[in-house]
Amino acid sequence: MSNKLWGGRFKKKTDKDFEEFSKSIHYDYKLAKYDIMYSLIHVVALEKVGILSSGESLKLVKALGEILKDVKTDKFKPDLRSEDVHTEIQNRVEKKLGKLAYKLHSLRSRNDQIVFDEKWYCLENGLAIGKLIINLIANLFFLAQKNEGQFIVGYTHTQRAQAVSFMVYIMAFNRMFERDDERMERFCNNLFAYIGAGALAGSSISRKNYKEAIKEFFKQDIRAGKIKPLENALDNVSDRDFILEFLSILAITQMHLSRLAEDFILYASKEFDFFQLPEEFCTGSSLMPHKKNPDFLELVRGLTGRIYGNLTSVLTTMKGLPLAYNRDMQLDKEPLFSSTETVKDELKIMAKFVKKIGLKKDSISKALCDESLYATELAEFLVYQGVSFKQAHDLVGKLVQYSEDKKTKIKDIPDRILKSFHKKLDHKSILRIMNPHYAVSSKKSLPQHKMISRRLPKKKTRKNK
Amino acid sequence: MSNKLWGGRFKKKTDKDFEEFSKSIHYDYKLAKYDIMYSLIHVVALEKVGILSSGESLKLVKALGEILKDVKTDKFKPDLRSEDVHTEIQNRVEKKLGKLAYKLHSLRSRNDQIVFDEKWYCLENGLAIGKLIINLIANLFFLAQKNEGQFIVGYTHTQRAQAVSFMVYIMAFNRMFERDDERMERFCNNLFAYIGAGALAGSSISRKNYKEAIKEFFKQDIRAGKIKPLENALDNVSDRDFILEFLSILAITQMHLSRLAEDFILYASKEFDFFQLPEEFCTGSSLMPHKKNPDFLELVRGLTGRIYGNLTSVLTTMKGLPLAYNRDMQLDKEPLFSSTETVKDELKIMAKFVKKIGLKKDSISKALCDESLYATELAEFLVYQGVSFKQAHDLVGKLVQYSEDKKTKIKDIPDRILKSFHKKLDHKSILRIMNPHYAVSSKKSLPQHKMISRRLPKKKTRKNK
Amino acid sequence: MSNKLWGGRFKKKTDKDFEEFSKSIHYDYKLAKYDIMYSLIHVVALEKVGILSSGESLKLVKALGEILKDVKTDKFKPDLRSEDVHTEIQNRVEKKLGKLAYKLHSLRSRNDQIVFDEKWYCLENGLAIGKLIINLIANLFFLAQKNEGQFIVGYTHTQRAQAVSFMVYIMAFNRMFERDDERMERFCNNLFAYIGAGALAGSSISRKNYKEAIKEFFKQDIRAGKIKPLENALDNVSDRDFILEFLSILAITQMHLSRLAEDFILYASKEFDFFQLPEEFCTGSSLMPHKKNPDFLELVRGLTGRIYGNLTSVLTTMKGLPLAYNRDMQLDKEPLFSSTETVKDELKIMAKFVKKIGLKKDSISKALCDESLYATELAEFLVYQGVSFKQAHDLVGKLVQYSEDKKTKIKDIPDRILKSFHKKLDHKSILRIMNPHYAVSSKKSLPQHKMISRRLPKKKTRKNK
Amino acid sequence: MSNKLWGGRFKKKTDKDFEEFSKSIHYDYKLAKYDIMYSLIHVVALEKVGILSSGESLKLVKALGEILKDVKTDKFKPDLRSEDVHTEIQNRVEKKLGKLAYKLHSLRSRNDQIVFDEKWYCLENGLAIGKLIINLIANLFFLAQKNEGQFIVGYTHTQRAQAVSFMVYIMAFNRMFERDDERMERFCNNLFAYIGAGALAGSSISRKNYKEAIKEFFKQDIRAGKIKPLENALDNVSDRDFILEFLSILAITQMHLSRLAEDFILYASKEFDFFQLPEEFCTGSSLMPHKKNPDFLELVRGLTGRIYGNLTSVLTTMKGLPLAYNRDMQLDKEPLFSSTETVKDELKIMAKFVKKIGLKKDSISKALCDESLYATELAEFLVYQGVSFKQAHDLVGKLVQYSEDKKTKIKDIPDRILKSFHKKLDHKSILRIMNPHYAVSSKKSLPQHKMISRRLPKKKTRKNK
Repeated sequence: MSNKLWGGRFKKKTDKDFEEFSKSIHYDYKLAKYDIMYSLIHVVALEKVGILSSGESLKLVKALGEILKDVKTDKFKPDLRSEDVHTEIQNRVEKKLGKLAYKLHSLRSRNDQIVFDEKWYCLENGLAIGKLIINLIANLFFLAQKNEGQFIVGYTHTQRAQAVSFMVYIMAFNRMFERDDERMERFCNNLFAYIGAGALAGSSISRKNYKEAIKEFFKQDIRAGKIKPLENALDNVSDRDFILEFLSILAITQMHLSRLAEDFILYASKEFDFFQLPEEFCTGSSLMPHKKNPDFLELVRGLTGRIYGNLTSVLTTMKGLPLAYNRDMQLDKEPLFSSTETVKDELKIMAKFVKKIGLKKDSISKALCDESLYATELAEFLVYQGVSFKQAHDLVGKLVQYSEDKKTKIKDIPDRILKSFHKKLDHKSILRIMNPHYAVSSKKSLPQHKMISRRLPKKKTRKNK
Repeated sequence: MSNKLWGGRFKKKTDKDFEEFSKSIHYDYKLAKYDIMYSLIHVVALEKVGILSSGESLKLVKALGEILKDVKTDKFKPDLRSEDVHTEIQNRVEKKLGKLAYKLHSLRSRNDQIVFDEKWYCLENGLAIGKLIINLIANLFFLAQKNEGQFIVGYTHTQRAQAVSFMVYIMAFNRMFERDDERMERFCNNLFAYIGAGALAGSSISRKNYKEAIKEFFKQDIRAGKIKPLENALDNVSDRDFILEFLSILAITQMHLSRLAEDFILYASKEFDFFQLPEEFCTGSSLMPHKKNPDFLELVRGLTGRIYGNLTSVLTTMKGLPLAYNRDMQLDKEPLFSSTETVKDELKIMAKFVKKIGLKKDSISKALCDESLYATELAEFLVYQGVSFKQAHDLVGKLVQYSEDKKTKIKDIPDRILKSFHKKLDHKSILRIMNPHYAVSSKKSLPQHKMISRRLPKKKTRKNK
Repeated sequence: MSNKLWGGRFKKKTDKDFEEFSKSIHYDYKLAKYDIMYSLIHVVALEKVGILSSGESLKLVKALGEILKDVKTDKFKPDLRSEDVHTEIQNRVEKKLGKLAYKLHSLRSRNDQIVFDEKWYCLENGLAIGKLIINLIANLFFLAQKNEGQFIVGYTHTQRAQAVSFMVYIMAFNRMFERDDERMERFCNNLFAYIGAGALAGSSISRKNYKEAIKEFFKQDIRAGKIKPLENALDNVSDRDFILEFLSILAITQMHLSRLAEDFILYASKEFDFFQLPEEFCTGSSLMPHKKNPDFLELVRGLTGRIYGNLTSVLTTMKGLPLAYNRDMQLDKEPLFSSTETVKDELKIMAKFVKKIGLKKDSISKALCDESLYATELAEFLVYQGVSFKQAHDLVGKLVQYSEDKKTKIKDIPDRILKSFHKKLDHKSILRIMNPHYAVSSKKSLPQHKMISRRLPKKKTRKNK
Repeated sequence: MSNKLWGGRFKKKTDKDFEEFSKSIHYDYKLAKYDIMYSLIHVVALEKVGILSSGESLKLVKALGEILKDVKTDKFKPDLRSEDVHTEIQNRVEKKLGKLAYKLHSLRSRNDQIVFDEKWYCLENGLAIGKLIINLIANLFFLAQKNEGQFIVGYTHTQRAQAVSFMVYIMAFNRMFERDDERMERFCNNLFAYIGAGALAGSSISRKNYKEAIKEFFKQDIRAGKIKPLENALDNVSDRDFILEFLSILAITQMHLSRLAEDFILYASKEFDFFQLPEEFCTGSSLMPHKKNPDFLELVRGLTGRIYGNLTSVLTTMKGLPLAYNRDMQLDKEPLFSSTETVKDELKIMAKFVKKIGLKKDSISKALCDESLYATELAEFLVYQGVSFKQAHDLVGKLVQYSEDKKTKIKDIPDRILKSFHKKLDHKSILRIMNPHYAVSSKKSLPQHKMISRRLPKKKTRKNK
């Protein structure tokens, strides 16, 4: 560590192993953009309290602007000998401006900077994830629409339950992702960065000066509203709620992705045989020449471990920490970045993936011929004929059992026997009721005209139609 | 299990051990209130589609009302031989009305009922927890106000950092709890129960009929708005997002409680000696006669395990479940109830606890004499004199080191030597700067007039003044 | 709390809510047996140092013996007003013997007792779980043996991979459970209880006296060896490693159970259709009359959440606790008991369950006709003919693709075309190689004579033969 | 991915994003050493079954040996376009030997290789961690011995409890680490790698051939014993127990480290003031010039999140996976490597750290003057005088309270008043009993001659004396 932001009272050199151990530059460099933003606002504030002359301020803004440009054009390669991103940027300014750089770190603390940086990271990535979710929703909707009118077997307990429309099946996942998107949107709406907490006790720059500095920096940019006047300095530097909330939201999204993956893995098996998966997202076996494995879906399912683990990690780290900042908190970043990047990758690839899924319609049709799928409709038919539900349930249960024992289809049972189960039962009504069309059309509780997702941008859905 | 809601097709008796293993009545009886509410709405809907006559409907409403009354007056003792709360209520209706009861379970499924019940449980408990948080905030504020004007040592890294006002210290925790309350409020605002999903495929009762049934049931009750028309049947019966969100919110609240507990444990130690804990919440030792232990705070800290564990539990259970309902989902209730009841107890007792904390002002004053607490103020003083921060930081670091080496107070260092560190330093300025009054009053970034909590009901805060 | 083991210095009554909150009697009463054992040894030790006369000692032993008898005959109903099991037993002795009871709690601490009790709980339950695992292994082996000579489809990635013998398939689970059993056995072998740690600092009773007391108490009982002389008092009262180790072992066992459950759920689906599950362990649907759901397996899979959550819980609670005992540690018991009882129930029912599984041999045979299952054997045949594996892999991959495209079986492809893929390929060799008998018998790396479990008691396995 | 180990039947190119997403080369290259070891054994086996001529075998051994040398001399830079380490090594062999390389991957599968590789990783790192633990134990022992005869305050509930010897205090941590070491040793002793499982179904190479190949490869090397004949092929490729066990062991070690860290953070605070931490392992503040923060200890405490999170991660991933191999399992490696490397770093630095801790003996002595520390000894004194413990406990509790109320030391209370508490109490006995020498020497249950660690190598401990 060539250049530290501290050390006046230290006589001994930092132990090399510990120095490596405690560094964060190899991952927190990802926050450079936000850290520079903080510094740019801070320069304005320092000028206001007279610590910087307007000339000095101008030079600092220019130097910081140059570094920011490097970041944005991907030319920012951090010096891995720096302790952290704050030190790295400070060093770069020093290289450009010499001793003037020393004034930049007046009246502020890395404790305050880091929480500012992380909040902006969450904000920007929260918005990006929202967009990726919307895109996945659109592509799932595309898959459903491409197969409009298609029915599919609905399961409970991994046992065939009732026939449902494929659209409703797909839209079940879209409802999950819509909630994820809404949750993320609410999170972003309610997330605000604060400025001026110092190390823990506040700063001598007034709230008024900070407000003006923010205003001058952002000008008309609506993002100005995301920085609010400080509410509590001790709380601000030790608050990691937003990271836990962000990781919790991602954990729920990941859970949804794991369920989608599980269903699709099953549907792509030889046994279910409902889906043809796109080869571009499958792999083979180094030993078994015939294999086409749903690796993407398996990795998505398996990544649930990582995403849950990252949440556990930060929750554990934050347990029982005394006020205010503690170095333990440095360890929030790797799990945050890991979950963010992982979920973004999954969403991005999943959207491409689902669009290319093919339906094996013959195989699905064959499964839909399973009469037990319509037992419920048959029981409900009897209920509308005045039979109590318990009785109807018993009776149809026995009819199903009879057909299994006799290895015959219910529709092939002669009226005489059907009527011995219940007088209202006959071949004709069986035919009418025990099929997917009747099953689906008899469900009046489902929305008819709201099939398309609420979260989908209007234009997009229109185009899809 | 005397009486099951299924079994028509089953020839063999359920294994006794499995029956015990799979039961949920011993905990899900807590949902009876909400389950009856669902049934009452359902009765209206069944009448609308002609499955119940108005006479039958009336009888069912009366019977359900009687059971509800038992629940509300704590007279509802579930028969532990029942499989679950739905069966239990069904059986009670049957005992009252005989075969008419059989019609009650028409066109609906326990899959749909249970998610309805759990959502109302979350809603009611979410509101209750909000109130308990507000109460804790009020009592923490009371503690702070009782000690107005008091300073305290602010820590980072469990090392003395800077002097802060005791009000700001306490309000740091209040800020945390305010966010918890806001988070819970947002959760409740965005939580809606749906009706009519059947087992997974929807119901033959129309949306219109459901809407009217809800309207007729609730009349003017604003809670009517918390039941919305079904959006997706498969999703509805397999959605447990709200439980995960609820448990995540509680996990963050619990983390805050653990931090409060940790700080207060430290402050109650002989070494810190800042707090006198109320004896009513401490215990002694069976061996060591002198002990007065902060057991309540330790239990609160330790309970973090339970609350995190419950979140892990439901996250794990939900991983990779295929659509739609699976029996695994039954296992969401015990963690939900456990976290809810635990956090409610903690909040309730903590509120009483904090009100009775005494400050050991002599001991705190002694700690505030530690001059290193004001090193930052001294450095910033130099900055305002034109010294660059880096230089000021170095210089004060060396001055602190000097005073430690010489075992002398900085305020006792003669001007001659002070000036050798920097010409602007002298005894007079040291005296002016290195004390808590200056330290706190020089912080201009803190809010001055918003000390009281935003979440506190107006009246209460006024009374407290 | 009528009667506490502490309180001399306390002036205020304990807050009622806190008293309820901090109690453990409603669950730690399960440790009564072990707590009395500790007391019985302690009485001997107290006599040795002269604190008890031999007459007093005799009376205490008698009183404790009576309570122990109540515990063993299930007549021990704890008074829920007691703080914990130690207090409860102390109170009972007091009721029997009056003031003499006061001497019983000399020179020891609940901190020491509780860790002793918990270790014995783990020991006894560890052994019991070992037996349940062995029983499950035996029953799985029974299932395999009942179906000797049966083949089944082996999967990777939930895609058909290669044919394997059903025995090997079942024995894969038995290998997992064998490791669990071995792990538990090692745990029990290496677990020792200590005595004499006091609250944290040790006791004035000498090691020699303790050793003799243990010897006199246990006489020839081999369990005497499980109590060792104290190694470190501070460590002993704050050690919860054994609980974490126990919960980790159970977590791995639970993971195995979840995998077994998942496989069997799939195999019981209409789509795989390999298994007929025993009706006694299934349930139906309250709405869908035809359903027979694998609820037991789903609950086992879902319980993974509980078992993982309990491990997370105690790990979290133990994080960062200062030495020595802290009240947080009280919270280790509920997760410990919960995981222990849950896994015991699962193992017990699973053993009964697997024994009654029926194989749907027709359906399995049909699946085994899938030629792609033998692609690997075909490739390896070519390798033995001198083809490099990469080439053989490519070539068979293309052959599989060809047969899929042409919708023909490989065995129906004329020799002419086969030979165009590779000259060594012909109808005859295809027939010989592409079937489960060849596939299984060509695997020379598998053990032939060690099919039976190493962990199965000799007699049992012999009988099974 | 220039060169894959599969793909014969694939017509479409792998999607670029998915390819990146699914790669593991950027971390599994760490397994190269073990993967080559597997290959070297495999070459011998392939020769035995005639697939390789002895000339081919020799060439392959030479090529693999060259790659191994690169790995050992840190010259192995993996091509990040490779899919995984197996592919990377295959490609390198191909570059060296052309088509002969194609024969290397005969009759084996990456499913089998990876589990072999990971087991050796665990073995080697398990041994390395054992050594690091022993080293930490030695250095903690060094710290204790350097301060022989020193007493320190013993705490329970973070409240002063009883005086203990500093040696016993430090040895409490050593007992924890001894258990960690023993646990790891047992783990290594019971870990065996298997060979010949193929993808899931076994291999056509006989057990005898494998055994001979292992023997020929290892010659006299005792590590030969760590590879055992295959027990079950399906189990072998899907077994990750050893990783979960390894991560559980590390989680317990990490818990111990977090407790050590917490204690030392407290003891380094101005309030406790027992320890002088080595500056080389502390850092300062960028804002507050006086700060010397225990960052290393805080990071250790905070890393508990990472280590617990990694365990949660793999447990979650493994939940409910069907037999046999699934791609999800690829995700076990990053958590495994992360926990291994983290704990190694912590142990290594902690060992250096503890050796340099200085005791602030004046400050400790002052704390040891607190008379309440000896209340227990006083009560026990009375017990030996025939007072029942309950009475003695009450009485001393009141005496402590009296001295607190009167703000007087117990040793300054006149005999007259002492005797009013109990006739056996007087100034002389108070002086004799209420001091650390008496307190520590009266504890007869502690081992006297086994202070040194059982796990410490004999020579080392002798030298330390």
